[in-house]
Amino acid sequence: MGMDYSRIEDWILREDSFDPEKLGKCEAVMSLGNGYLGLRSATEERYLNETRGLFVAGTFNKFDENEVTELPNAADMTAMSLTINGEKFSLTEGTTEDYTRELNIRTGELKRSMLWTSPKGTKVRLAFYRIVSLKRLHVIAQRVEITAVDSDVKVELKSGINGKMTNTGSQHFSDGDKRFYDKRIIQFVQTTGQSKIDFVDTTVHKLELEGNVLPLEAEVYIEKREIFAGYTVEAEAGQTLVIEKYSSVYTSRDLDVEGKTVAQLQELALETSKELESLGYEALREESARQWEEEVWNLAPIQIEGNGMDNFAVHFAQYHLRLMVPAHDARMNIGAKGLSGEGYKGHTFWDTEVFLLPYYIFTDPKTARKLEEYRYLSLPGAHAKAEHNNYKGAMFPWESAWLDDGEVTPEYMDVDILTGKPNKVWSGFIEQHITSDVAFGVWQYSVITGDEDYMERYGYELIMDTAIFWASRLEQGGDGKLHINDVVGPDEYREHVNDNAFTNYMAHWNMQKAMEYYHLLKEEKPEIYERLNGKLHLDEAYGAWKEACEKLYLPTPTEENVLPQDDRYLSCRDIDLSKYKAQEHVGGITRDYNLEQINQIQVSKQADVLVLFFLLEDIFPQEVKKASWEHYEARTLHDSSLSLSTHSVLACDMGEKAMAYDRFRKAATIDLGPFMGSSNAGIHAASFGGVWECVVYGFGGVRMLGGNLRINPSLPDEWTKLSYTIIWKGQKLAVEVTKGTVSVKNLTGTKQVELEVNGEKCVL
Amino acid sequence: MGMDYSRIEDWILREDSFDPEKLGKCEAVMSLGNGYLGLRSATEERYLNETRGLFVAGTFNKFDENEVTELPNAADMTAMSLTINGEKFSLTEGTTEDYTRELNIRTGELKRSMLWTSPKGTKVRLAFYRIVSLKRLHVIAQRVEITAVDSDVKVELKSGINGKMTNTGSQHFSDGDKRFYDKRIIQFVQTTGQSKIDFVDTTVHKLELEGNVLPLEAEVYIEKREIFAGYTVEAEAGQTLVIEKYSSVYTSRDLDVEGKTVAQLQELALETSKELESLGYEALREESARQWEEEVWNLAPIQIEGNGMDNFAVHFAQYHLRLMVPAHDARMNIGAKGLSGEGYKGHTFWDTEVFLLPYYIFTDPKTARKLEEYRYLSLPGAHAKAEHNNYKGAMFPWESAWLDDGEVTPEYMDVDILTGKPNKVWSGFIEQHITSDVAFGVWQYSVITGDEDYMERYGYELIMDTAIFWASRLEQGGDGKLHINDVVGPDEYREHVNDNAFTNYMAHWNMQKAMEYYHLLKEEKPEIYERLNGKLHLDEAYGAWKEACEKLYLPTPTEENVLPQDDRYLSCRDIDLSKYKAQEHVGGITRDYNLEQINQIQVSKQADVLVLFFLLEDIFPQEVKKASWEHYEARTLHDSSLSLSTHSVLACDMGEKAMAYDRFRKAATIDLGPFMGSSNAGIHAASFGGVWECVVYGFGGVRMLGGNLRINPSLPDEWTKLSYTIIWKGQKLAVEVTKGTVSVKNLTGTKQVELEVNGEKCVL
Repeated sequence: MGMDYSRIEDWILREDSFDPEKLGKCEAVMSLGNGYLGLRSATEERYLNETRGLFVAGTFNKFDENEVTELPNAADMTAMSLTINGEKFSLTEGTTEDYTRELNIRTGELKRSMLWTSPKGTKVRLAFYRIVSLKRLHVIAQRVEITAVDSDVKVELKSGINGKMTNTGSQHFSDGDKRFYDKRIIQFVQTTGQSKIDFVDTTVHKLELEGNVLPLEAEVYIEKREIFAGYTVEAEAGQTLVIEKYSSVYTSRDLDVEGKTVAQLQELALETSKELESLGYEALREESARQWEEEVWNLAPIQIEGNGMDNFAVHFAQYHLRLMVPAHDARMNIGAKGLSGEGYKGHTFWDTEVFLLPYYIFTDPKTARKLEEYRYLSLPGAHAKAEHNNYKGAMFPWESAWLDDGEVTPEYMDVDILTGKPNKVWSGFIEQHITSDVAFGVWQYSVITGDEDYMERYGYELIMDTAIFWASRLEQGGDGKLHINDVVGPDEYREHVNDNAFTNYMAHWNMQKAMEYYHLLKEEKPEIYERLNGKLHLDEAYGAWKEACEKLYLPTPTEENVLPQDDRYLSCRDIDLSKYKAQEHVGGITRDYNLEQINQIQVSKQADVLVLFFLLEDIFPQEVKKASWEHYEARTLHDSSLSLSTHSVLACDMGEKAMAYDRFRKAATIDLGPFMGSSNAGIHAASFGGVWECVVYGFGGVRMLGGNLRINPSLPDEWTKLSYTIIWKGQKLAVEVTKGTVSVKNLTGTKQVELEVNGEKCVL
Repeated sequence: MGMDYSRIEDWILREDSFDPEKLGKCEAVMSLGNGYLGLRSATEERYLNETRGLFVAGTFNKFDENEVTELPNAADMTAMSLTINGEKFSLTEGTTEDYTRELNIRTGELKRSMLWTSPKGTKVRLAFYRIVSLKRLHVIAQRVEITAVDSDVKVELKSGINGKMTNTGSQHFSDGDKRFYDKRIIQFVQTTGQSKIDFVDTTVHKLELEGNVLPLEAEVYIEKREIFAGYTVEAEAGQTLVIEKYSSVYTSRDLDVEGKTVAQLQELALETSKELESLGYEALREESARQWEEEVWNLAPIQIEGNGMDNFAVHFAQYHLRLMVPAHDARMNIGAKGLSGEGYKGHTFWDTEVFLLPYYIFTDPKTARKLEEYRYLSLPGAHAKAEHNNYKGAMFPWESAWLDDGEVTPEYMDVDILTGKPNKVWSGFIEQHITSDVAFGVWQYSVITGDEDYMERYGYELIMDTAIFWASRLEQGGDGKLHINDVVGPDEYREHVNDNAFTNYMAHWNMQKAMEYYHLLKEEKPEIYERLNGKLHLDEAYGAWKEACEKLYLPTPTEENVLPQDDRYLSCRDIDLSKYKAQEHVGGITRDYNLEQINQIQVSKQADVLVLFFLLEDIFPQEVKKASWEHYEARTLHDSSLSLSTHSVLACDMGEKAMAYDRFRKAATIDLGPFMGSSNAGIHAASFGGVWECVVYGFGGVRMLGGNLRINPSLPDEWTKLSYTIIWKGQKLAVEVTKGTVSVKNLTGTKQVELEVNGEKCVL
């Protein structure tokens, strides 16, 4: 009951029963999109516990001073109220047979079908189809087939645009112009309250009975924030009524319609509606499916043989990795829930650099570059944050939204179980490692792609500017060393710690990299050196970096070879964590202890020093990694969706294949698994990047180390073969791994590629 | 099925079946309140099509520039999610027997009970009780009884405060402070966005099993805009679990807590919670029921004998007339839907003066005075509107909200069926008769109550100031006459008409009354004359009034004795209106014709010249009334809830008793009747005043004419006896009417009362 994996060989995720209390899961994991639009798969007929959601990337708005900017939930155009012989169609009424909902991740089509008998006994067979076009970013198309089974039926349809949607009660839009054109095309203009982004929503219906297009005679309803059309059609027993609905969204933020007035957008949308009407659902579905094939499946094919579920899981990850990424616009980035829900408000975190970027770098470098350009374009916010905190350089926000928004982490969340007051969220103030994570992403991108143009325009500056921040951030200690006090590391169960290993090592890396590039620019790219020196005073900065790198305190392993996570962790008390290790829902420990108490226990929300080993894997000896792994793995609750894939990849590196596979399976089920509930607020974007990392970095053994490509594959017992492609400095390599063999082919073949495979250097 | 009148003899309105598609009716007509709070009777368990609503009188807020100010829908505290043995309680699931919902209008208590069998077969008997206290204006109390019928049950309750409520999508509140005190008391602070009114919402639960109070151990949930407690209780077969929930609302607009800071309000609300907890539901219900007895039923008893439904209807009207009136605060007035829904946004119209005021004047003069003080206090808005339109004096807004808001009529509504564009609402611009309606209300109030203090402080000034407006409003015509061009009269199916009879005659009356009072003040109250002359330049104004009254064009009857509604009406074409006269839902004609077309047809939305005859009944001869009645009644669709009672009262005056009774019955069923749907957005406040007018003005024959009291009763055939009380110049008179007799007693007896009964002058 619930999620059904019987058709995964056909790239289809199914739901085989309907539970009106558990709608969030499929709404999110079966959501549709194209990086511009994200549409939760809420059903056509409405339910009390539904969470409808339509998000347009980058259209951030701030509801009021008490809230942070968030991605607004746009007007809904997918709902359709159907009344069959006077009875409202709803799966909570009457009886439902043959129910399935299917997401075809290969074509991006959602289908739902059932045989429904109304409370009074009218029988209809219904099928609902829906796409968000990957070919036409602004377009949603729907098709509904209603077959009268054994009696004549009168179908009443009420359908249009509903602008009453909110983000958990916050209304981001002003009510605007509403129009019926030709008694057929419905249009609604909304404008975000603070950011003043205009949305032009347009929709039109087409009705067909037994293949004949019916003339539309709408009853029209215009109320506050909504505009609807009503149609009534009679069908005889055995006949099929088809309703198609074509919708489009244009906004004044869109680059592809830049400079158009609202009136021009309205006109354009009208034209779009007419074009969609003439194309029809099937043609729109077809061209979008072709686009999926070309843009995703041919571009970055991966194949796991030996386990169909694992194979599906990595494709499912790729499906969502395409939905979430605004490949069309460098002014926006990936939200922690993609575009599949209100969770994390559409904000971008370190997730992009550490968990998502590798996928795009290795499979779609153009899109990866957009993600990295975003960080450059959002420097104004990073400068503002640094200045606000009396630091220098670029201090990136922990949560990031529009380019100049700066820090947008909400200040309070959840409740303190002891005081009854909301908990203060410290990440926006002191989770500072994000700044070196951004620099690390720049470096990764540039080395793997060889995109020197990016570096010259943006990359060198970003690495210098972030290093300047770090030099200004350090504090002189009584021991003559420089320290980074009062931070939160990746392990958010520990607030206000000093000398967090991850933070200190990554800051050190950041400044080292800046010094390295300083020399490089001065020697090899004097013009760029001059420009950046003028802008950032590099010569002065260099001195600061040098001193800082020499004096920065870097935690060293204990006698037992355990790298201390921070200056307190190892001296905290141990408690029996088995209850929380076995939990079904994350965060159980916060129901028993408040954060202050958790701070006194050796317990981690997620991998902390382990992520450090993952990113800077060549600076720690194997025995430190091993001992630290054993210490921290036992104390990690994986209360973050980011944690599991890191553990899996590291377990691979350490030859712990069974454990690696176990963690991979767990990571793969975060959204795909049968648990109803955990995906309600949206999918876990980073975990999809993590799934790809488990497969290609972990079992596939791919890593960029010190600028070089290394492939050390090692398949889990369950797999017979793994094949994937990666793009290394512009050359697309096809890798095939079986139990005993590795083959790497250069599919591009325009440049020589040097790499190391299982310890042996090769040239392709 | 649906509304059930089997218990009306016990003052109880029932619903005998539950239809999840038709929730609005009972939510509105069974709503609870006390003039400060208005609470729609949405159920504890939630449904898709519910419209929850909690309104606090006078707390207007404007969502944004595109919208007008409206009464915001405050956070919900009545919802309770109940899970019984793991199954969510909902009447759309499982089976329900013995269902009833009952509103006791005598005590103001709502009760709902049923035997519910869950889909898996768990049987529980449930009873829900609820009051809004008439004794403690800030308080809502609820009680739920859950009896395990034949098996042990585990009950999970999730209940708290939900701040995600909106007004049809417009969110009026900033999210604010959320707190759990003692893991027991839940508090939530919201602040309106533009008007900056703080709301402190507080709630606390008490759980009892078989009479034993259970210790509360809440799981707490704090999210954006919501704060909830979760409780789990197990009951054995046969045991009854009782949940009581006590909630309070305080706002920074409240007079009774004026000057308190938010922190002080929070403290006060905490104290209130503790007091309510210790009192318990039964004591709160009891004291509130006593208050209903004293304040309403003993104050203004009415009894109709011979027809129980009519008797109930007038009590039902009185019930809602108490719910809707902010008797506690002169800075607010009655909304067109009372406090029972979002319809008309909580705004005050001419409904107050013409349809509602008579009830309060004759039964509760203190409250009537508050309503009239409101008009004085809102003069700043009226002055602003006049100035904005280049007129002088006080031009009252067609729709009125907070004192200095001025005109708040929305600019657009519905859709033009021809152009597909929203219709412009002209009332806010040109429905100008409201200004003389306000003056008329002042005069009525002062003459009937004899409240000279009111007149001296506010009344004379209001009548002068409104007359100054009218003198400045008139336009010189080519005929040497003054005209009032381009208005909407009470009949809103006719826009942009000239010389609307109602408008012109009432303007004339207004200026005449001002001239009369000018003389009176000058001669008898020179101090007041001096004060007002200084403020309003009365001497100058008097000249303008005199000329205006002489020259103002007053439409005269045709040869057929029909008073022309305006300069065009009688020359418009007639069409067959039978389709619309027979309609079940109002406004049918607007689906066939747009407003421009309707303007060319002899058709009326509501009584127009008939209202004029009703207000100024002594200036038109009987034959004009009769001929006009016949002409217009045939062409009136009663598409306004205000229309029927006017027709009924006039039919009484003309001796058309059968027709009068028919119209009365129709008026009485507007909200009380069995039609589901028409009350969704709230009850029809004016129609309740109209019901009282039908009874006391119409059949009871009471009228103030030229300053004198007249009682000409005439019972419909269906009634054997009618008794009621009215207060005339401070003396409470008890009137008893049977088929052949009229008796009037002075219950107060401190002053002589002169009146005319059935044409005979009497002195009591």
